[in-house]
Order: sequence, then C-alpha cells, then structure tokens
Amino acid sequence: MNNTFDSSVVARCTAQIVADLPALEWITDARVDRLSQDFYWFSPVLKRELTGLRAHAVVRPKTEAEIAAAVGACASAGVPITLRGSGTGNYGQCIPLHGGVILDMSAYNQMLWVKPGVGRAQAGIRMGEFDRLSQPDGWELRCVPSTFRSATLGGLYGGGFGGIGSVNHGPLAATGNVLGVRAMSIEPVPRVLELRAPEALLLHHVYGTNGLVLELEVGLAPAHPWLEAVVCFEAFDAAIEFADALAAAPGIVKKCVTLLAAPIPDLLPQLATSLRPGQHAVFVLVAEFCEPGLVQLAGEFVGSITHRQTAAEVAQSKRTLVEFTWNHTTLHAMKIDKSLTYIQSGFAAGPHVSQAKALRKMLGDEVLVHLEFIRSKEGAPTCSGLQLVRYTSETRLNEIMQIHRDHGVFIANPHVFHVEDGKQGEVNPDVVATKQRFDPAGLLNPGKLRGWDQREALAARAASGDVSLRTLPKF
Amino acid sequence: MNNTFDSSVVARCTAQIVADLPALEWITDARVDRLSQDFYWFSPVLKRELTGLRAHAVVRPKTEAEIAAAVGACASAGVPITLRGSGTGNYGQCIPLHGGVILDMSAYNQMLWVKPGVGRAQAGIRMGEFDRLSQPDGWELRCVPSTFRSATLGGLYGGGFGGIGSVNHGPLAATGNVLGVRAMSIEPVPRVLELRAPEALLLHHVYGTNGLVLELEVGLAPAHPWLEAVVCFEAFDAAIEFADALAAAPGIVKKCVTLLAAPIPDLLPQLATSLRPGQHAVFVLVAEFCEPGLVQLAGEFVGSITHRQTAAEVAQSKRTLVEFTWNHTTLHAMKIDKSLTYIQSGFAAGPHVSQAKALRKMLGDEVLVHLEFIRSKEGAPTCSGLQLVRYTSETRLNEIMQIHRDHGVFIANPHVFHVEDGKQGEVNPDVVATKQRFDPAGLLNPGKLRGWDQREALAARAASGDVSLRTLPKF
Repeated sequence: MNNTFDSSVVARCTAQIVADLPALEWITDARVDRLSQDFYWFSPVLKRELTGLRAHAVVRPKTEAEIAAAVGACASAGVPITLRGSGTGNYGQCIPLHGGVILDMSAYNQMLWVKPGVGRAQAGIRMGEFDRLSQPDGWELRCVPSTFRSATLGGLYGGGFGGIGSVNHGPLAATGNVLGVRAMSIEPVPRVLELRAPEALLLHHVYGTNGLVLELEVGLAPAHPWLEAVVCFEAFDAAIEFADALAAAPGIVKKCVTLLAAPIPDLLPQLATSLRPGQHAVFVLVAEFCEPGLVQLAGEFVGSITHRQTAAEVAQSKRTLVEFTWNHTTLHAMKIDKSLTYIQSGFAAGPHVSQAKALRKMLGDEVLVHLEFIRSKEGAPTCSGLQLVRYTSETRLNEIMQIHRDHGVFIANPHVFHVEDGKQGEVNPDVVATKQRFDPAGLLNPGKLRGWDQREALAARAASGDVSLRTLPKF
Repeated sequence: MNNTFDSSVVARCTAQIVADLPALEWITDARVDRLSQDFYWFSPVLKRELTGLRAHAVVRPKTEAEIAAAVGACASAGVPITLRGSGTGNYGQCIPLHGGVILDMSAYNQMLWVKPGVGRAQAGIRMGEFDRLSQPDGWELRCVPSTFRSATLGGLYGGGFGGIGSVNHGPLAATGNVLGVRAMSIEPVPRVLELRAPEALLLHHVYGTNGLVLELEVGLAPAHPWLEAVVCFEAFDAAIEFADALAAAPGIVKKCVTLLAAPIPDLLPQLATSLRPGQHAVFVLVAEFCEPGLVQLAGEFVGSITHRQTAAEVAQSKRTLVEFTWNHTTLHAMKIDKSLTYIQSGFAAGPHVSQAKALRKMLGDEVLVHLEFIRSKEGAPTCSGLQLVRYTSETRLNEIMQIHRDHGVFIANPHVFHVEDGKQGEVNPDVVATKQRFDPAGLLNPGKLRGWDQREALAARAASGDVSLRTLPKF
C-alpha cells in the first residue's frame, strides 16, 4: 500500500529532470552525500538504519518559480522529493529513503516583513539571519534551536519542536506562535495556498511529508539584551529546584534555562573556566535588566555564578552559551565520549521536578541528566529532557525509555524515523488528509509518514464519521 | 502593650504642628473627612467598625524635605502618622484609628527615570501618569490596579497585591518586580535608607505600618498596543475553561483575563451593548498582534466576541475595560445592587478551575463568581477571586469564606483591618523587626499591625534563635 520506487527508474528520471532544467542550481557530485544527511548519527540505531541512503540530485532554488519548476518536473516523473533546510536535525528527517531529489530550501531565504510582534520570511531563511534583521526593530524569533546560526526557519517548523525561548512561549505549536504558512502542492502544475492558524500547523513537525512550506508568518518576541550566566551547584536537588524556580519566576524575564547535571559539565572543556569540576551547572539567559532577580534567586538556592557575560560581551566574543544547550549539549558530549547517545523526553507539568529526581535516583550513572525548562503548549512551567545515555544496546536503550514512560514522562523517541514513532504511535488523520491534498502521489519524503500507508482505512473511518477531519480552505 | 493615644493630646499636638510648619500644605477643613477614608464601605463589617474615624489634619508635602519636616514634628510630638496615596484601597488601610496626621503622598509624584525594563519614581506618582511617561520609551508598569488613573505607585506597593498585568508577572511580590525602595524612618530626625530586593519587599502590603516609602524602583513590561475584547459564553464551564486557556496560553501576549460569571455582566449597564444578557463574560486585553490567537481560542471554546476595540479606539473613547475589572467590578455592581459585598480569594494553581466549579455549584446564587486570572508568585497559572456575595449577615459571610478555605482556597479577608487578619493570621517577624527599625515609637498607622503588639515576645524568640530575622543594611 505504501509508495514503492524503483531506484533505477528514479535515478534515470532524476537525471532527465536535471538535464531538462539547466537554469536551476543542481548538485550531483560528491556533495550529494553530505546534503543527504543530518545529525542522525546521534542515534546508533538510526546510524545503522540510515547510513548510505542518498538522493540522486540536490536542487537549490532561489525563487518560487524555480521551486515550482523543480516540483512540477518531479511530480510529472514520479520522483520523490525530500525537503531540506540546513540539515541540522537529528532524526534523519531529511535523509531520503528512496532517493530522488533533495529540495534544498536554504537559498530561498528572504525576509519578507517585520511588524510589531509578527514577522514573515521565506522558509529557507537562517534563524540567526532573521533575528539579525528583526532585532533592530526590537523583535526576534520566539524560539530558536541551538543551531540557530545555520538552521532554517522552515526546518524548525518542519522538523522541530521548540527551543531557546520556549521557556516563555512554549513549543512552536502553541496557539499564536505560527500564524500562517504559504504551501505548495506536489503536482505537475503545483498550486499554492496560504494556510492560516490553526490549519497552518498541519504541516508542522511532520518532516516535510505532507506539503512544501514556502513562507512562514510567525509571532515574535521583544528582543531584550540577554545576559548569559552559569550558576553552579554542589547538590543536584538545589540545581534543579533553582532552575525550576527561575524558569517559572514571573518577574524575571528570561530566554533559556538549561540544567546540565554532573558529569555533563565535565564534557564541555570549551567552557572549563566557567564551570566547576564535578558540579551541576545551570545555563541561563536573562534580560540584562533582570540580573538582580537572577542574583537573588541564585543566592536563595546557594548557587555560585561562575560565568557572566552581557549581551555586548557575548556578541564580541562570538561564543554564546546557547550553542551549549539543547542538542548542542549532545553534540559536544558525544565528541568527548563516543559511547554516549541520548533520549528526548517531556516531563509532566507539575510533578516534573519530582519525576526528574526519581528517574535520576533510579538510573544512576547510566543516564546523564540534561533538562531544558520550558512552558508546555498550554503554558504550564515544565521541562524537557535531552538526557545523555551511556549506550550498551538497543534493548537497554528502549528499556530506559520505557522506564521514563512508566514514570509518566513522555518520550519523543529520537531513534526512529517515522513521524508517528517519535510521537508515541499516534497517527494524525488531519496530517494524512493534508498530505492527500498537497501530495496526492505520495512523493514527499516517502516512507516517513506511517499514516500515509493507512490512508485508505483512515479515509473510510472519516467517511463513516468515526474520524472528523479539519476542513481546509480551497486552493 | 499596644500604643495608646489620648485623642485630645493628639488633637492639640497636631494643631501645634500645623501652626509650627506653615510652609507645608495642610488641610484641616471638612475635606479631612474624605481624606481619612478609602473604599472600606465595600465591606459592611468595616463600615460598621471604621465609620467616623478621622485624622486631625492632612499634610500634602511636595519634597523629601517637606516630608521629613512633617515626620520629624510628628515623631517629636508622638502624633500618629497614616500614609495615604489616593485612597483607592478598600480595606480601610489609610483610615487612621487614632487620629493624628494623614501624610498624603500624592503631591510627591515625580518620575525619576525610565531605563529598559526598569523605572523609578516618587511614591505618590499616579500609575496612569507613570505609564503615560514611560510608554513612549516602550515600557509600562508590570501590574496596575483597575484604579490606575488615580491610584499611586506607593499605594499599590503599600496596600495592594497585584492587578492588571499579573497574568504575566504575578503579584508585585514576585522576585524581580520590585527592585528597590527608598524609605524614611519615623524619628525626630528622620533617616533615609535605600532597600534593595529582597529587603525592598519588607514594607510591601503592610498598609504603611512599618516605614515610609519615598521612592520605588520597579521592573517594567514591554508596552504593547492592547486590544480590548469581551467574549461571551452561554455555559459557565466553557467560559472558565476559555479564560484559563487564554491566561496560560504561552503564544498569546495578554495583559488581563477577567471572568465575570452570570449574572455579574447584567450589573454593568454601561457595557450593555458589549454584553449578552444572562451570559458569562470574559474581559480580555491581548496585544493587537495576537488577535488571531484570541479569535482562534474563542472559537475553540464556542465563545462570541461581543466587543472589540483597538488600543487607539480605547484611547479615543476614554473608556477601558480595565475599569470594569478587579475591584472596579465590585464598585459597579454594588452601585446597582446595594445588598452585595465581596470576598477575595486565591485559588490553588493547578486545581484552580475545578475548585471554582465546585464552589459555584455549592454556593449557587449567593456568590457571584468573579475571577481574575494571574500567575502565582512562583509563576504557575492560576486565578484570584473577587467574588460578589449577597450579604445577609457577618456570620454567613464568614461561613462563605470558611467554605472556600475548606476547598483549599486561600482567603484574603477584606472585612478586617489588621494586616495579619487579611493574610490568615500569620505575623511576619521581619515586618515587625522592620517597624522596630523604621518606626521605633509605633506612630505609623497604629492599630493595624498585630505583630507590633507581640513584638516583645517576637524579640525574645529571635534572641533565642527560634525566629531568624532578615538582616537589614545600616542607615
């Protein structure tokens, strides 16, 4: 029932498309290998399953017309299309399972406009570039990944959850964060549609499997001068309680609160002078004008401020703590200790601190606690985990994730490449119906959306009223 | 053990002070009656207990030197001093129990400076004036009462809890909201001291009983253009769930979320065209750029937007929904229905919605549900109640408050005039120690701070190490 592709046919058709569209920027040399990958190798499981998979060609369009030309040609020929931003993801989202064309969006990258609280840009804009352009007007993106310098806005939307700033605005999916997307269908004559929220979220976090996002209109946050600081603690309980209190503190304006339990700080030699060996570290970004509140809170929890840089100092140093948080922590740690991998988790708002304490006690040295404090989609203070795991076997890795689930912690499994598997098996009929509309031939990133395989059963349930589908506007 | 004052002696001494300091602005005519009052008559209990109490004179200083002159004279003569802002409180805070001098701070009202995220002003500045001066720089106060037009910043600090904006920044007491106060002692030669947070909070919400606040330095919030809207609901559950979801929604920037359950909207004839008879209303202020999120959420909860004004329209109309929230609701309702009084409550973050539903079911028509959605001091989304009560007797009023407590809801009893009684009986030794320091003769607002009566016992406990006191900086 799933689309199948004959590799030799796809190869031949792709070569023909490349030949037919010489005006586009095509890449067909050895660089295709790199452009067919992301940071999937964070996972030993994905490394085993995805290594060697590659596209037949990469195209890097600069205009909507160029995108339409490439898409139209692929759709006519039945060639798979895999969307790619900068390839900074780590779930193999942009690794093509069935070859074909990688549509690299990174050259489609213009800022369109910035107004108070809202901005709009082409999907391939790098988030650091977006902020550079919007900050002079006093606004910046509400959440960015630690890879903000190279990662694209469309890539975060298509493959990400949230990031630095989610401590204020929750994940990207929270109402008000994404206001609209302009999306293209995968058809011989591609059509384009503006989807406004909430429909604008139907293409979010599904790895570019159900539509091609051209532009994004997103809510912005006030751009404050961010003070970066590290607060070190001897005791884990004090560290996590401080991080939790700071993250939730309604009078302290912040952008990032990251807990790196010992021994993770020891895996960051670049920051050695800002850390204390053997201690737990909390990395924070607070508005400069809120430094007194930070100092007060650090004092209450008996933490030591071991690093402090103003926004100007950070800009001058060209090194930001942000690039040691979220999955950058994972990256740095894995460089030092090759035996490490990681898991991703969402704690239950409310008991999140006690859950984290209990799991740390139970799992000991095998799981290194890395928590990012955020607000849930509904707005409750909580935290996400990007725990480092001393890898022994896939079986044990799965056991560790199950232990988390058994404690009421949600696991966003980063060792799978199906959209639904990362989200605990739930097929979203609206996502599948959106793919039916935007990608009727199933050419987008084939093999990643399990619900597409079940689309006939889903359609039958929808027809019988068992599943109600969101109504999309007309093209 | 409490200070006692001979009324005729106080009268004679006050008259002498007035005569001795002719350069100050004194009020000794019939206006003293009005200036000795606040909105204490919201409470039938306070009305019975406090009516008729008045000062012997009111002084309205314009400079710190004038304040020091008045304070020094009163301290020398043993005359009670009661601080007053604009008298917009409703707990009898500024009603002098023992006559003497009312120190009206409203002419000591200069803005001192506004920087990004922080501002400083003299205590008597009206909050509407503060915002008028700071908003051109892009900043405004983090929370204001519904009486912001006339109420003073020092008055909010001395007698208030939070208000419009607390849905973002929590109560005034949350770390980071108050950064510093300049305070004067009540002595023949008054001394002045800058207290920084957390010590800056020691004079907060204690009715001006333990020190005289001259200046306040407070955290500011970005000044967005606020859209005002009313969303009406047929069902109470939908209304409270919408209000709760909107208040917590991390992607929707807001300033105020007020739930007025039926039949409260019917008591607001001024807004009749914006309301629906018999329905529940949620009054909201959201940033104009977040209107799509508001509309989306209202749709999800099947609410009808029955009123919508942009910031410019609000400014032009000179009428804001803000002046129908918090205790303005109480004021408007009591004008229509004289049998009403009210209570104040703090719901437990987490179960707050289910607590409110259960109490409404239990108390029926006797208690009219008015909830203000806020974040707790720790930052958790929750709500405060300013429920209207159909008054039958003081006994029944106390029963209703006890029923709330029995459901896990905190009561800030507005029918008492002792600082501690409004806070469920807890004496704060630090507050009392601060009074010992700033007001050793016990002249400030005498009779309101119960802990002052117990100061010898508290001091003994502190000496024995049973109570540890916060160390204050030296004068």
